[in-house]
Amino acid sequence: MSHPLFERHRALLDQALKAIAARGYWSAFPESPSPKVYGEGVPESGKAVFEALLHKPFPLTLPGSTGTVGGEISPYGMRLGVTYPKVELNALFAAIAKAEQGWRKAGPEAWIGVSLEIVSRINKKSFEIAHAVMHTTGQAFVMAFQAAGPHAQDRALEAIAYAYDEMRRVPAKAYWEKPQGKNEPLKMEKRFTIVPRGIGLVIGCNTFPTWNGYPGMFASLATGNAVVVKPHPNAILPLAISVAIAREVLTEEGFDPNVVTLVAHAADDDTAQQLALRPEVKLIDFTGSTANGEWLEKNARQAQVYTEKAGVNQIVIDSADDMKAVARNIAFSLALYTGQMCTAPQNIYVPRSGIDTAEGHLSFDQVAQSLGEAVQKLVGDPARAVEILGAVVNDGVAQRIEAARGLGAVLVDSQAIVHPQFKDARIRTPLIVKLDAKDDAKYLKEWFGPIAFVIATDNTKQSLDIARKAVQQHGALTLSLYSKDAAVTEAAIAAAEDAGVALSINLTGGVFVNQSAAFSDYHGTGANPAANAALTDSAFVASRFRVVQHRMHV
Amino acid sequence: MSHPLFERHRALLDQALKAIAARGYWSAFPESPSPKVYGEGVPESGKAVFEALLHKPFPLTLPGSTGTVGGEISPYGMRLGVTYPKVELNALFAAIAKAEQGWRKAGPEAWIGVSLEIVSRINKKSFEIAHAVMHTTGQAFVMAFQAAGPHAQDRALEAIAYAYDEMRRVPAKAYWEKPQGKNEPLKMEKRFTIVPRGIGLVIGCNTFPTWNGYPGMFASLATGNAVVVKPHPNAILPLAISVAIAREVLTEEGFDPNVVTLVAHAADDDTAQQLALRPEVKLIDFTGSTANGEWLEKNARQAQVYTEKAGVNQIVIDSADDMKAVARNIAFSLALYTGQMCTAPQNIYVPRSGIDTAEGHLSFDQVAQSLGEAVQKLVGDPARAVEILGAVVNDGVAQRIEAARGLGAVLVDSQAIVHPQFKDARIRTPLIVKLDAKDDAKYLKEWFGPIAFVIATDNTKQSLDIARKAVQQHGALTLSLYSKDAAVTEAAIAAAEDAGVALSINLTGGVFVNQSAAFSDYHGTGANPAANAALTDSAFVASRFRVVQHRMHV
Repeated sequence: MSHPLFERHRALLDQALKAIAARGYWSAFPESPSPKVYGEGVPESGKAVFEALLHKPFPLTLPGSTGTVGGEISPYGMRLGVTYPKVELNALFAAIAKAEQGWRKAGPEAWIGVSLEIVSRINKKSFEIAHAVMHTTGQAFVMAFQAAGPHAQDRALEAIAYAYDEMRRVPAKAYWEKPQGKNEPLKMEKRFTIVPRGIGLVIGCNTFPTWNGYPGMFASLATGNAVVVKPHPNAILPLAISVAIAREVLTEEGFDPNVVTLVAHAADDDTAQQLALRPEVKLIDFTGSTANGEWLEKNARQAQVYTEKAGVNQIVIDSADDMKAVARNIAFSLALYTGQMCTAPQNIYVPRSGIDTAEGHLSFDQVAQSLGEAVQKLVGDPARAVEILGAVVNDGVAQRIEAARGLGAVLVDSQAIVHPQFKDARIRTPLIVKLDAKDDAKYLKEWFGPIAFVIATDNTKQSLDIARKAVQQHGALTLSLYSKDAAVTEAAIAAAEDAGVALSINLTGGVFVNQSAAFSDYHGTGANPAANAALTDSAFVASRFRVVQHRMHV
Repeated sequence: MSHPLFERHRALLDQALKAIAARGYWSAFPESPSPKVYGEGVPESGKAVFEALLHKPFPLTLPGSTGTVGGEISPYGMRLGVTYPKVELNALFAAIAKAEQGWRKAGPEAWIGVSLEIVSRINKKSFEIAHAVMHTTGQAFVMAFQAAGPHAQDRALEAIAYAYDEMRRVPAKAYWEKPQGKNEPLKMEKRFTIVPRGIGLVIGCNTFPTWNGYPGMFASLATGNAVVVKPHPNAILPLAISVAIAREVLTEEGFDPNVVTLVAHAADDDTAQQLALRPEVKLIDFTGSTANGEWLEKNARQAQVYTEKAGVNQIVIDSADDMKAVARNIAFSLALYTGQMCTAPQNIYVPRSGIDTAEGHLSFDQVAQSLGEAVQKLVGDPARAVEILGAVVNDGVAQRIEAARGLGAVLVDSQAIVHPQFKDARIRTPLIVKLDAKDDAKYLKEWFGPIAFVIATDNTKQSLDIARKAVQQHGALTLSLYSKDAAVTEAAIAAAEDAGVALSINLTGGVFVNQSAAFSDYHGTGANPAANAALTDSAFVASRFRVVQHRMHV
């Protein structure tokens, strides 16, 4: 049952299996967008390929097509003008049912081999995808390249490795011999076949279409399921390119390309709901709003639903060696991609009596001031700032900035910046507002965008108590602590484990709380309302397939 | 973080880990109720312990007790007269919340060690539990001993081994060093802590309280969750004994015994629903009716719900070497525990043109006749019959026999038998009714009890088509095929894999389709409506815990 693509990528898979067992540093795909790494001329040709896609129908033929759809507008200002097949779902699912037959029977090594080939081929299109992601999400180019390219590919590979690691634990056959005292033993041969669940639906988000989309897509595909990818209406292109690559590989390997399909649709229609309630859909991977995620969890009962929803990420500042280093690190986390990362911090708790540092005691206002200055310094030069901030993904962010300004004393106001290259780009710098612990109605909800609150608390114990409850009630993907005190650190670890959130401690260097590294950091825990699953652990893959046995005497 | 009980049972765990990797024959707990195996006098003393429990309050002190409850009646006729604490749920859950604190933090090796000690100690009470199971489920003594004793203990150990196998794959810590070109690498230490989901609720069934109850109970406990056991109102005693043992071990090891609690309740109250909707309950393991299982799946949205529900098990007879051997094997499967096993066959499809055997062609009626004769022979001697049949678990079975008699031509009628020892026992022999494939409204539902249909089909292809659709629409735990034809066998395997049901082929010896051996046979697949999970695979355990990390620079 081995497959040539499984053999071709076996060394890569083995490395990935070692990486998920150790969860130290490892990356399969280089994150540098340098021609020295990806080849001379590759950055330019990738950009040219992207530009050649604009203002025309995307080259993808799907069953059930009835016209086209597509109206993506770049956060940098331009209309992409790409159209995609609009598909009629009954016809699409009939075609998928046909496609599934051969795929189901191909077995784990074919599923894994084909998945690995798709990811490897996606890697070769990293520049094309980076430009597509930049102009659908608003990420600055280098971030778009890294997060949507190699980092997302690493997350895909990680999911494939976990899928294989679970499937390989099921023996293909067993010999069963049960003693019967003085009589002949009972002897049977048993065969165990891994069967997929059905169709996996991937519901993509606007901000990280590939990074958040690939894990579910490849976890389902690598366990033998067909996959329907439904991108966000304003971030179709990155996933369309990925689906086209998947279909190309499937076709080359003699499989029906409809094992992987794309359902692009217009904003605000009910395509997602229609898809999610199809009886054929047995797995759903969703990233998006809490309202939509909870709707899926409640209504798509025929499916196993994996959701990543909203949350309130928090920083507890207790004490520090070097407040400037703390502030620099936090400022970058607030500014990076305009705070539009699901991992970006929002609430920063500081004792109202201030904190101890190596340079002496700092008052609450001095701590706040230090944070404000670090942000202003970071975004002071527009040409440099736009490469960190990227652009605002949608109008809601600007509206929330406006609303948040009125919540309290503004420490640093959000500014509109003109992008040196893209004059119509929506660029906003972070807003920081001072609040008090008692203002919980204001800060205990997600203010998606570059909005942060410096919140005065009675003491670090109260900071941790608020943080713990906020995680339990509102969800969070990240929690961050700054402390020189071992007891406080232990208390923070206990609070994080109790509430079920990943904790970063004393980040003052080149690692930021927003960052989650594939093969090492679990993204989400599944233990608080922000996500019911983690990227990636065995729970993320183990329910995507079943085992069917047959047995007979020998 | 190691634990003395983990070390004590390490060799047993290692054997179990080898067994789940190979899924050949292995058993940790001897199935023979012989004093040679379990010790001289042990059978008698176990019986005496059981009898001493009758007609008095069960020795168990629980928080929130407000009086007692309990009205178990043996299918063999007698009232058990055992009462159990009736608990007020708010008080109970407050006590569990306190108990959870120490248990959560104890870590995987303590959870595993304590779980293994509990199972080992349960094994020593196998005779006591066997009598309790006999007089709550109606199983004959030897079956009660084996299925509710060592076989259930093996299933518990299997779940513990899978739990450990998943948990041990998460490293406790990792060193992460990311190269930064010419600069110093980024260096971090990461720690990964396994945290339980919350409270696991086990909803027991009347027929197999321990065999079906232990896997969820120990899968949840071994992953650090507290466990609330809610037995069926007529099968409390076996689980009460098990819970008492668990509490004894927990106490000895310095844990709060309320990590494992029992909620006994009166029949037809809403205790199960109240428990299932508690926000603290994050895992539910249920065995019972389709209606109740679907209610849980729909309403207990705060929990991960594992259900085993009703199904229609089927046998396809295509051809045979020795029809008498086929008939003997099937007859035993129909009679064993009065067909009250969730794995017992119900529908037997035979081509209306008959089948080929090594002794020549047999007509449909000859095949049916052969089955009927085998049943009559098996249950002809009441003294022997009652040791196979056991007793009828509840009045519904007798009512269904009555109703099924009218469905078609009766091939073998069900008889009431007087038990030589228990004159008030409800004993019924199997009923076999002849039907036609077109009577699908009659046979495409579960007729729980000793009710089977021999169904005339156009040919084996139609038999397999009906069987496949029945599994997909109504669920099944077992499918059985008799055929000498390789192509038919391949078609049956394909149908079984397509519909997602375990297939047994040509069982004519000492293995019966009802039987599912721990460490080898997966019980249920999770791929058809009869069960949304399998006993036991990694999917059964992987979602019972989460991983919470913290990271810091080094």
